[in-house]
Amino acid sequence: MVNSISYKTIGRLILYWRILRDLLAQNKTQIHSHELAAQAKLTAPQVRRDLMTLGYSGTPARGYDVVGLKEHIEKFIFPTKEQRAVLAGVGNLGRALLKFFQGRRPNLRIVASLETNPEKFGGMIQGCPCYSIEEATRIIREQEITVGIIAVPDSEAQYVADVFVKAGIRGILNFARTPLHVPSGIYVEDVDLAMSLDRVAYFARQAIKTEKSEADQAVIKERGEE
Amino acid sequence: MVNSISYKTIGRLILYWRILRDLLAQNKTQIHSHELAAQAKLTAPQVRRDLMTLGYSGTPARGYDVVGLKEHIEKFIFPTKEQRAVLAGVGNLGRALLKFFQGRRPNLRIVASLETNPEKFGGMIQGCPCYSIEEATRIIREQEITVGIIAVPDSEAQYVADVFVKAGIRGILNFARTPLHVPSGIYVEDVDLAMSLDRVAYFARQAIKTEKSEADQAVIKERGEE
Repeated sequence: MVNSISYKTIGRLILYWRILRDLLAQNKTQIHSHELAAQAKLTAPQVRRDLMTLGYSGTPARGYDVVGLKEHIEKFIFPTKEQRAVLAGVGNLGRALLKFFQGRRPNLRIVASLETNPEKFGGMIQGCPCYSIEEATRIIREQEITVGIIAVPDSEAQYVADVFVKAGIRGILNFARTPLHVPSGIYVEDVDLAMSLDRVAYFARQAIKTEKSEADQAVIKERGEE
Repeated sequence: MVNSISYKTIGRLILYWRILRDLLAQNKTQIHSHELAAQAKLTAPQVRRDLMTLGYSGTPARGYDVVGLKEHIEKFIFPTKEQRAVLAGVGNLGRALLKFFQGRRPNLRIVASLETNPEKFGGMIQGCPCYSIEEATRIIREQEITVGIIAVPDSEAQYVADVFVKAGIRGILNFARTPLHVPSGIYVEDVDLAMSLDRVAYFARQAIKTEKSEADQAVIKERGEE
């Protein structure tokens, strides 16, 4: 029985699933844990531990059955009946997300988008109807939406989160750079694009500094050896 | 002296910087570590440890000086002279990223975008010139670009990463769902939007299951007590 499974484990299972899907497309039917680990950039014991958590085991001689393992993970990770999502904020990022996510997962569908800009109400954006944020509660309840995506300006994010939670949403994907306050039991995943870019820029500078100082060291060493 | 500082610490420092910027806009000049911690959803010892890493300390009576601390973090985290970035892949997500990032950071600028679609070459997208991917090496070297953003289809991501690294890029923000293989010393940050959404959907379903089972438990308990 799987009782509680961590956020990181779920991420790794999704990764295994993708690798298995690609292997299947290449007509590969068996895979050893060390091969799966190499593709996922993990260790073989980690892979075996994760799959044992799911109650799935391979044989030492032949490894895992690709079809069987893929289906086993699928049943565990993905919704078996349609799960509905709503997106708040249809600016540039919101529209890109709608386009990016639409039709990617058979059982996960963004069924509504929400806006404060009246010019956008009533229309369809990327095949998804757009409503006023005032209608959020009604739509979420009527359509039994459980997943919310927040792509509104930072100053509006907490307001949207409060509306979402009250209406019945239990998981939030948050693109605003605001730490959201939600009741315990509600899952929030923050995707902070500005922070990611700042961090990449910082580490890129550090890498160049290190290379320069290593190059200087090499020069000093060469001179010392002359 | 700060020698090596972790990925998580950099994230927290960026968060503190944002909070301080907002405090300054509210004319607040002093802040205690526990107040900063509460806003960042962290503990006060964590905040004090992070700031000590930077060689910055407050006083027990008055806390930290908001202006001084903000500037101290800024000098550490953000580039002091212009650092340049390139974006590969100008589809929906790429365009949204260009719009999202442009002008946000004074010293970090996306100076070029790259495409394989000839219809997009030579034009300007969100104020950023678009080139053929074949020109990548020349542009990255000439403009001393150190940061690369990958928003191309999964199957092209490794090819782009190889071109980037050879040309001199040291930090990559990767939106493709492909584990990139790069030499050690190159920093890669993966933003896997599909995985994030799958994970949020999974935990939303778990939350609802837990609520239902708790409600069932409550009913059983009530019956037992009748």
